[in-house]
Amino acid sequence: MEPSPTPDTYGVGARVALHPMSSRYVDIILGALADAESEGNGVTATTGVVSTYLGGDEASLLRYLTALIAAAARRADGEHLAVTVLLSRGCPGEVTCDLRGAAWASDAPLTAETTGVQAVAEWSLYPLLDGGDPAASAHMEPIMAAIDEARATGLFDGSEHYATRLRGDVADILALVVRTWRDVGARVQHVVTHLSFSINSPTQEASA
Amino acid sequence: MEPSPTPDTYGVGARVALHPMSSRYVDIILGALADAESEGNGVTATTGVVSTYLGGDEASLLRYLTALIAAAARRADGEHLAVTVLLSRGCPGEVTCDLRGAAWASDAPLTAETTGVQAVAEWSLYPLLDGGDPAASAHMEPIMAAIDEARATGLFDGSEHYATRLRGDVADILALVVRTWRDVGARVQHVVTHLSFSINSPTQEASA
Repeated sequence: MEPSPTPDTYGVGARVALHPMSSRYVDIILGALADAESEGNGVTATTGVVSTYLGGDEASLLRYLTALIAAAARRADGEHLAVTVLLSRGCPGEVTCDLRGAAWASDAPLTAETTGVQAVAEWSLYPLLDGGDPAASAHMEPIMAAIDEARATGLFDGSEHYATRLRGDVADILALVVRTWRDVGARVQHVVTHLSFSINSPTQEASA
Repeated sequence: MEPSPTPDTYGVGARVALHPMSSRYVDIILGALADAESEGNGVTATTGVVSTYLGGDEASLLRYLTALIAAAARRADGEHLAVTVLLSRGCPGEVTCDLRGAAWASDAPLTAETTGVQAVAEWSLYPLLDGGDPAASAHMEPIMAAIDEARATGLFDGSEHYATRLRGDVADILALVVRTWRDVGARVQHVVTHLSFSINSPTQEASA
């Protein structure tokens, strides 16, 4: 039996960017990154020009992202905050995919502690099929299963063009998105998901 | 011969969100949307809770996005601005794909007038293959061709995990991204691309 690949060799990781709509944005971003560092076990964080790269297994990424976004929301202290998250698995290189093999995913439990921070988010899930089972080429099927799971958890808030809207505690939204992304990965090698959070938006209630 | 599908029936459109990191963010966003309206011929804009949906053909989307982001940058007046853009084609429904047919793309010219606004951006391109030629299942091939085009235009600024970094005038970056997304669409039905701009970042020069 082949050993399980590591998050590093399988290319499991994330990119995240915090956008506080506040003149205090530098303090909010740097403060939140420092706060999340204490949750950083198992996560390699590398700040880039546009966003921060996070490498690690699914449970570590979920814990880190939850801590980071909750910390940013606390530091924003009621001011509007947008956060973009990209999760990717199955393509460990930068622009090229070096892996050619079977899809793989752990089945470790993925839960996150409630933060008390409410958010609305737009979510897209992209199974990219490379190296996967040809039967998986009906790529909408795992997406529909993920949306069914969103409905079952009560987080589903509506359908937009190209995205599903979720509403709830930041931890619950992240847990759903990380879990479905990981679970689609058991059938499809290369899977990417994008998530855009809006927190404390003045238009959130009116548009809901 | 079948008539060409319309942008609406083929699902050609975008989602965009402006994130000015400024206490003036509401004025900057609403002002930029009003400025861009004069470029709105052929684009249907619908503001959602998290982002704004734009429907229209590729040339109209390119013109509108260029006007919108340049206007936001002018109104931000040196303050930090992040912008996220999602472009999608070939999946006209909200979460489900109703189209089953051959990939299709126009070959109309796609250029945008220089704005004078410099940006750094992270770019990802996802050919989703649904209904497409099985030969297209090597989905990295059109991505590599798009990155080669980025190098040829001088906009390529580096490779990140899960994204390619571009640097240059906002119009040139958008033109490259819209063009390559459209051109991959000639071979693959459902193609999505995500682009995150950073404008006037205090860390941009240091990290470059």
